[in-house]
Amino acid sequence: MLVKVFITPKRGVLDPQGRAIEHSLKSLGFNNVGQVRMGKYIELEVAAASSEEAASEVKRMCDQLLANSVIEDYRLEVERA
Amino acid sequence: MLVKVFITPKRGVLDPQGRAIEHSLKSLGFNNVGQVRMGKYIELEVAAASSEEAASEVKRMCDQLLANSVIEDYRLEVERA
Repeated sequence: MLVKVFITPKRGVLDPQGRAIEHSLKSLGFNNVGQVRMGKYIELEVAAASSEEAASEVKRMCDQLLANSVIEDYRLEVERA
Repeated sequence: MLVKVFITPKRGVLDPQGRAIEHSLKSLGFNNVGQVRMGKYIELEVAAASSEEAASEVKRMCDQLLANSVIEDYRLEVERA
């Protein structure tokens, strides 16, 4: 099963990459751009019997390795292969 | 309007971050994990009159700055604020 993970900096956490992108876009003339937040996107192939099993497995992966829960939030989407 | 951008390495392009995550997960005991691909996730606030206008504006941003079209693909989602 294909699982998509979206990791974003928590609200209130400084996001220097996002700020850098925002400034670069403005200096390129994109003046209609507001706040930019930069996160991570991970696609994982997981062998699991059900979507629920895949989701709970990837949740454990996020808690142990993929996301830093102090400064990051994550969200999952399970897609059948 | 909030626009979400998903940037992924193209198929066939070496993805060392994804490989590193895959190996780390396996060494943590997640043996049911297969291929892992690591990409970027960007959220942008864009002032635009319509979803179509926001999408075409962010598409230009991706082509000019956010994505490297030689090695990366991108996909957009526009969400009304």
